Amino acid sequence: MKTTIIGLGLIGGSIAIDLRAAGIASVLYGVDADAHNGSRAVELGLVDSLNSLEDAVTMSDLVIIAIPVNALTGLLPKVLDFITVGAVVIDAGSTKASICRSVATHPKRQAFVASHPIAGTENSGPDAAFAGLFLNKTNIVCEKEKSSPAALATASKVINALGMNTIFMDAEEHDKHVAYVSHLSHVSSFLLGQTVLDIEKDEKNIFALAGSGFASTVRLAKSSPDMWAPIFEQNLDYLSQALQEYIMHLQKFHYHLLKRDTRELHRIMSGANEIRRVLEGIELNQKSGTRLETPLSTNK
Amino acid sequence: MKTTIIGLGLIGGSIAIDLRAAGIASVLYGVDADAHNGSRAVELGLVDSLNSLEDAVTMSDLVIIAIPVNALTGLLPKVLDFITVGAVVIDAGSTKASICRSVATHPKRQAFVASHPIAGTENSGPDAAFAGLFLNKTNIVCEKEKSSPAALATASKVINALGMNTIFMDAEEHDKHVAYVSHLSHVSSFLLGQTVLDIEKDEKNIFALAGSGFASTVRLAKSSPDMWAPIFEQNLDYLSQALQEYIMHLQKFHYHLLKRDTRELHRIMSGANEIRRVLEGIELNQKSGTRLETPLSTNK
Repeated sequence: MKTTIIGLGLIGGSIAIDLRAAGIASVLYGVDADAHNGSRAVELGLVDSLNSLEDAVTMSDLVIIAIPVNALTGLLPKVLDFITVGAVVIDAGSTKASICRSVATHPKRQAFVASHPIAGTENSGPDAAFAGLFLNKTNIVCEKEKSSPAALATASKVINALGMNTIFMDAEEHDKHVAYVSHLSHVSSFLLGQTVLDIEKDEKNIFALAGSGFASTVRLAKSSPDMWAPIFEQNLDYLSQALQEYIMHLQKFHYHLLKRDTRELHRIMSGANEIRRVLEGIELNQKSGTRLETPLSTNK
Repeated sequence: MKTTIIGLGLIGGSIAIDLRAAGIASVLYGVDADAHNGSRAVELGLVDSLNSLEDAVTMSDLVIIAIPVNALTGLLPKVLDFITVGAVVIDAGSTKASICRSVATHPKRQAFVASHPIAGTENSGPDAAFAGLFLNKTNIVCEKEKSSPAALATASKVINALGMNTIFMDAEEHDKHVAYVSHLSHVSSFLLGQTVLDIEKDEKNIFALAGSGFASTVRLAKSSPDMWAPIFEQNLDYLSQALQEYIMHLQKFHYHLLKRDTRELHRIMSGANEIRRVLEGIELNQKSGTRLETPLSTNK
């Protein structure tokens, strides 16, 4: 298929690599608002050429959009305007409700498959792209009933080529759960990084005293503000709720600490230990997930 | 040297393995308050025998104490009571001020080297012990002026055998910095785990939506409450300060989020991105740290 990738960063670039390797993309057109990223993606061979949005999209059977979510809601309706009959558009945004709303009444809504591949690293840009980023990870598809069976069939080919497992979810449900399971982790890590940098003016102390635990906990603080600020704002309601609960739990812990209530501190930490079972479940899940092997009926 | 290890868990067990391999420990006596841990450590060959505290210590030239810090302050004076002339005691506690205070006026204070090896995993118990846990990690020695040159010389052999780099620090300074760089990370991770478990009653959602970022951020929530509750309580003042600052940063971030102040959110996250440089510094530091190769004079 003639394929356009809009947004040639870690996600778009890695999708390009896998789709070419799987033989799904016969030619790859690249679109990027950042000229430097664009030419770097061509240099790296991620895409064959750089094109204007309209040129690329009108020539393509498949359009993948992997740009920050605030730009995505603006661009998606235009992309649907440009596509030709039979072409399919798939996004990779980390929020889903706003994105789905942006094309809810678009006459070509059925050509769009709302998608969130749960994969990434704390690095960004075309140089961060690599083959196999998505292997055995989960892809969430929202509002599948609003995509045509043909569009879902194309999406299933793409998702399978990336080696991902598919789960279907309501867009609001998706946004609520990722607020807790993904977005809150990023906020906690950014602010932990800030707190430590704020107090430790002399970084030698961090170098000396930080162990692998610290590194693990603040890893996400390296993430791109350009990507995450729009995600946080689009998911404001759910993230705000998650943040309030997190802060409340921290304050309760602090209260029991000040009271030297060992029993209660112990109880809280033992409860949190349950996460061990959950993390083992994640690993297991990534080994045995369900693939979207066949086109799915949307009419039942 | 005839060596006693008190506390046969991840830290004590791993020290036993390395000291035997380096030829420093000719025989290893084990002491553990938990009978199951003790016999398991013998089964695993971490120590040669289980002994009473008094028997083990009076037979030893070297005593390593790797038990929770609340038990440590109680036990350390007794260990010093029991040791024979020339024997050296080294602890591995994650706090230092309370531990140093517990033997400040002990007549054998000079035989003790206050030490904090910055190494560990989220696992605990004798089965978690492994060779090389400490390799290229940092060991903090506090109040070195209160240890005799002979005791420091023995400690340097032990620390070098573990492959660690040594840094000297004031005990209060140590406790203040680890509150931010280590203890706060653990609290943030425990409470993040709790927040997510609290909302996600159906764990299938966590399995589906959690990526490697979530796993990284909550890894420390798997840590042992038996170990960490006493650390948090001994370091209450500094940890409380660190927690308050962290909560304040989270609340400010929440405020700017609710205001949809993209510019400010971006500024905060870009600041936190500086942690990338720090984390690279940690890796670099662990490659080129300073070894405590020779006995250090304490009289200058």
